[in-house]
Amino acid sequence: MDFSSDTSAPAHPAVLEALVAANTGNAVSYGGDELTQRLRGVLRERLETDAFDFWICASGTAANALALSVMCSPTGAILCHEEAHIERDERGAPEFFTGGAKLRLLPGFGAKLDAEAFRRALAENDPEFVHETPIEVLSLTNLTECGLAYQSDEIARFAAAAKQDGLRVHLDGARLSNALCTTQASLAQMSWQAGVDVLTLGLTKTGAIGCEMIILFGEMREAFSALRARAKRSGHMPPKMRFLAAQALALLDQDLWLELATQANRQATHLANALCADPEVTLAYPVQGNEVFVTLPERLRSRFEAAQVKCYPWPGGAWRFVCSWATPDAEIDLLRQLISR
Amino acid sequence: MDFSSDTSAPAHPAVLEALVAANTGNAVSYGGDELTQRLRGVLRERLETDAFDFWICASGTAANALALSVMCSPTGAILCHEEAHIERDERGAPEFFTGGAKLRLLPGFGAKLDAEAFRRALAENDPEFVHETPIEVLSLTNLTECGLAYQSDEIARFAAAAKQDGLRVHLDGARLSNALCTTQASLAQMSWQAGVDVLTLGLTKTGAIGCEMIILFGEMREAFSALRARAKRSGHMPPKMRFLAAQALALLDQDLWLELATQANRQATHLANALCADPEVTLAYPVQGNEVFVTLPERLRSRFEAAQVKCYPWPGGAWRFVCSWATPDAEIDLLRQLISR
Amino acid sequence: MDFSSDTSAPAHPAVLEALVAANTGNAVSYGGDELTQRLRGVLRERLETDAFDFWICASGTAANALALSVMCSPTGAILCHEEAHIERDERGAPEFFTGGAKLRLLPGFGAKLDAEAFRRALAENDPEFVHETPIEVLSLTNLTECGLAYQSDEIARFAAAAKQDGLRVHLDGARLSNALCTTQASLAQMSWQAGVDVLTLGLTKTGAIGCEMIILFGEMREAFSALRARAKRSGHMPPKMRFLAAQALALLDQDLWLELATQANRQATHLANALCADPEVTLAYPVQGNEVFVTLPERLRSRFEAAQVKCYPWPGGAWRFVCSWATPDAEIDLLRQLISR
Amino acid sequence: MDFSSDTSAPAHPAVLEALVAANTGNAVSYGGDELTQRLRGVLRERLETDAFDFWICASGTAANALALSVMCSPTGAILCHEEAHIERDERGAPEFFTGGAKLRLLPGFGAKLDAEAFRRALAENDPEFVHETPIEVLSLTNLTECGLAYQSDEIARFAAAAKQDGLRVHLDGARLSNALCTTQASLAQMSWQAGVDVLTLGLTKTGAIGCEMIILFGEMREAFSALRARAKRSGHMPPKMRFLAAQALALLDQDLWLELATQANRQATHLANALCADPEVTLAYPVQGNEVFVTLPERLRSRFEAAQVKCYPWPGGAWRFVCSWATPDAEIDLLRQLISR
Repeated sequence: MDFSSDTSAPAHPAVLEALVAANTGNAVSYGGDELTQRLRGVLRERLETDAFDFWICASGTAANALALSVMCSPTGAILCHEEAHIERDERGAPEFFTGGAKLRLLPGFGAKLDAEAFRRALAENDPEFVHETPIEVLSLTNLTECGLAYQSDEIARFAAAAKQDGLRVHLDGARLSNALCTTQASLAQMSWQAGVDVLTLGLTKTGAIGCEMIILFGEMREAFSALRARAKRSGHMPPKMRFLAAQALALLDQDLWLELATQANRQATHLANALCADPEVTLAYPVQGNEVFVTLPERLRSRFEAAQVKCYPWPGGAWRFVCSWATPDAEIDLLRQLISR
Repeated sequence: MDFSSDTSAPAHPAVLEALVAANTGNAVSYGGDELTQRLRGVLRERLETDAFDFWICASGTAANALALSVMCSPTGAILCHEEAHIERDERGAPEFFTGGAKLRLLPGFGAKLDAEAFRRALAENDPEFVHETPIEVLSLTNLTECGLAYQSDEIARFAAAAKQDGLRVHLDGARLSNALCTTQASLAQMSWQAGVDVLTLGLTKTGAIGCEMIILFGEMREAFSALRARAKRSGHMPPKMRFLAAQALALLDQDLWLELATQANRQATHLANALCADPEVTLAYPVQGNEVFVTLPERLRSRFEAAQVKCYPWPGGAWRFVCSWATPDAEIDLLRQLISR
Repeated sequence: MDFSSDTSAPAHPAVLEALVAANTGNAVSYGGDELTQRLRGVLRERLETDAFDFWICASGTAANALALSVMCSPTGAILCHEEAHIERDERGAPEFFTGGAKLRLLPGFGAKLDAEAFRRALAENDPEFVHETPIEVLSLTNLTECGLAYQSDEIARFAAAAKQDGLRVHLDGARLSNALCTTQASLAQMSWQAGVDVLTLGLTKTGAIGCEMIILFGEMREAFSALRARAKRSGHMPPKMRFLAAQALALLDQDLWLELATQANRQATHLANALCADPEVTLAYPVQGNEVFVTLPERLRSRFEAAQVKCYPWPGGAWRFVCSWATPDAEIDLLRQLISR
Repeated sequence: MDFSSDTSAPAHPAVLEALVAANTGNAVSYGGDELTQRLRGVLRERLETDAFDFWICASGTAANALALSVMCSPTGAILCHEEAHIERDERGAPEFFTGGAKLRLLPGFGAKLDAEAFRRALAENDPEFVHETPIEVLSLTNLTECGLAYQSDEIARFAAAAKQDGLRVHLDGARLSNALCTTQASLAQMSWQAGVDVLTLGLTKTGAIGCEMIILFGEMREAFSALRARAKRSGHMPPKMRFLAAQALALLDQDLWLELATQANRQATHLANALCADPEVTLAYPVQGNEVFVTLPERLRSRFEAAQVKCYPWPGGAWRFVCSWATPDAEIDLLRQLISR
């Protein structure tokens, strides 16, 4: 029973098939290949706009850091939640790629930005005060680190306030597919239509081997050439780029990615039900995607440990269980039996 | 007829099969998986030593830059050939990853370091002179950028002199397989036994999708934890790392990588013969691997262009033709016919 | 009436006299001069040890950032108070000089580190967890940003706990003279004897034009050559260094610096008394140095504004008044009259 | 007899007097003071334009690096002479401040840029070629490191060609006063009128304690706020900035700086004559400022050493002798006697 992370899951077979199919004959290196070009067309449809540019990356950390590095100057700050992935799980990648920018941290339930704290941070921000590092970027995450989904109009409200104060808006969408399924928003609604300037669109956790896209909207397209140069110098311009594009195409084709996310979300609901069948288990956060956070009684914790149930201790005392497209019913059933034993 | 680069070639089918085989069930993320552990054992055999640590990367630029970042301080310099990949083709990655170190450039025929210039550079190096950036690392490349192979004892001589002056020795082995086949040296002879402290061992150009290893020998193992942290913060710790390990295993297994390199080298020899059949074609450098550099008469150049023969203009006026494991006899035959027409 | 900052004060005349005296004939550049050598001897006496190395700087921001850059790796974190100067007033200098390290922020009354929060931060710190940035350095400030003085044994307790967990200890002593006068501790007691590894000893706010010293104790001396190289490449190795040394000598000679700090502290007490004569004025923090933080009734605030009393609005609503060696009795009297009017 | 460097010289007495005069009463910190404002007016006159912004620094290395950091992106390159101060004497400061930009080195007699090599470098520069670092800035030095003076129309020709290819033009004027005296060009002619975008104007070597100005012309003024932020975070925004402004005012007032440079140049000519009185001494470069480079016969070298004549060994075998405003006739006479002995 492995609920440790959606990154422990295998890739979807369609992804592997796409790799095999892509492996025929020579192809232009570094993104000049045909598959990368085809991906542009597919993204255009999904994004419902022409006003974008994009880059593909194998790593979500790199995708976030590269995105932020063209949004924030070395002497600026990025506003984010204190539990955001860019703060807690990327070993200082934003600081490294931006050349020394700071993250300014805000609280909020379930890793969602507290609106009042956000308002205060904006009010105190003074780009002209040379001593303190001014905020230049707002970075939101959807799903949040605690598995909550922002509605697209929540994103829009934060983005509008941020932009009024001259900030740019970044959306870390490592699990955006799960959020889209939950909120029933379209990719366009959740991104540029909500005021997002740069989207990090993750497919790795959804079912790829390693495939994340950095999508620049509107005026941010002017930063594309800088983004490409920064990708190159950070080792994120793989010569055989067709194999990244192939993964994205496989998952975006016929919206397989949303199908897989729906399946992962559904399993998470089953899993939550199974866990909450025990009267001493409580949900730390509502389940709004493919992650379940619960507080466990000692009794269950030791039972899980004995049965080698893999889950992840969360700061604050809860335990995180993650489902993926590949989480089998059987594992959830096993867990249910273990709990009711 | 595509002789533009070995990075335009497809991956070897065994690599794709290995990916498919690796895609079963869950696996621990971030390198804790079973394949990555198995790779350690295989490397131990090939390297003929236990005294090493390694990291896997999808990008050769990242592998070089990460390696150099644990070898050279931000206020130090790296000695390399003026045509080295780290200087000419990585968009400042070494400067970025080291936090501002400098590359000190030396001349030399065929991108091999000129021994006399090297001696002078060492003689002038003064770590105590605070104004100028002292050399801390020697970086060699085998095959060189012009396709020449260093013999292992050449490497050993450079390394010994470097170490006597307190430098560390890095070997960029993006095409090391080709050099090993040419020189008939073993991996151990060409690396730690020759005094190499850190080896960047590339498999991408040999036949992987994207797979490069950074191998720390001897005392450099102390830098492993820093290397891992730097890999993480630069987005080179992919969650589904098993797919990198699988590629390496497929190619190292039964020395498939050397077989593929031998094949690429053989085709390069055929190609060189085909090119030199024209009396006006001259080799810019001897063929010692899978690359052929020739000066072409205008007559052939326009004929090649018309026939869409892909080759690469080299600084100085020569043209580079690269063969890979997948270069078909038929393409070389076609080129031969085109030339003799 | 200017109570805005001790950096608005002029330098003490003895400092200017020392500059004039230093300006005779040629002197070796870059710190090889006689005055810099003489300073070493004076520091040895004041520090009561031989086991130190030092560098002089015109800027406190640079002194802190240079100190931290040899204490913390680019992938590490520095623990400090959320109102620390290195976080709030140095525009990301620590991030810049370290090459991307993070500041980890802790709360605490009066900008003193909360002991319980500190204990928790240490307990959660896991250098082996590669995803999150581990704490490598503890940075304390004495006087704190809110004008409180740590006793030397408080410093010692924090330092001991930090070192047990493998951290290094930095002390930002931009106003250390004021803290020494308040606590009656010696420089040795407050620094290396308390477990401080690197001290930033400021004299600018005490009475210099611009003169701060970075003092490396014990094993940190091994970092001296790196410190010197980093000073050089950041523009903090002035060719005519004798003029920095001359300032330090003038102030350390016969403990003039402590005399000036005592005077500044005394004026701050007078000022606090003058302010608190108004029943609606309350001290935000006890006065333990040369700074006074008060909450002001609107009535006084507008009266001060009309009379062009310079003081500084503090985050949270208090007002900061700073005294220096040069704060005249007359200004405090004027303020007293203004309040009682 | 100390001809080691103009940085070994004392400051001119007028500079010390200005410091003493500036040391009265409180002044706004960080450049808001009256002297800094007055300096703006004086610069406006000397520069014959309103279209500039400026920053003051104590360090020439910092002034150059800060200037370059707002001219060149982290993924760009700076073209300069292979003996330029920014390459040879600043310990990687440009790389550090720019966040990893590269220096591209060109040859040329006497540290003047070879026009043909410059033309070729521009011709090969391709900003769209993502692999190699494109040139974004041309940096010239006047006086050059070998003491030669560019005429203003030479600067103008290089600048015009650079700008046609989209480069920005930086002038390192650490010894600009000496070049102005030699060429009889005005400050305006030698800077913005010649196409210089950013000028580093040094006064330290002319007679200050430590005072260098970064002057942004025309459109580069848009970078002023970034420059200020970068100055702050690198420790080059001293709180008591009036003492920097005072130095500049003292030297620019009634063109004292040019008077001092004229004097230094004159002494260099005398010195060169004294040296060349020996038939075996030859000038390595013509004397066009305050520096003399000669090749010395062994006989003189040992005689100089015995007499503790301080001069500086130059790469390539020549010896550098530098005069300053303070070089006394007596020292030159002594040297003359020593030679003719």
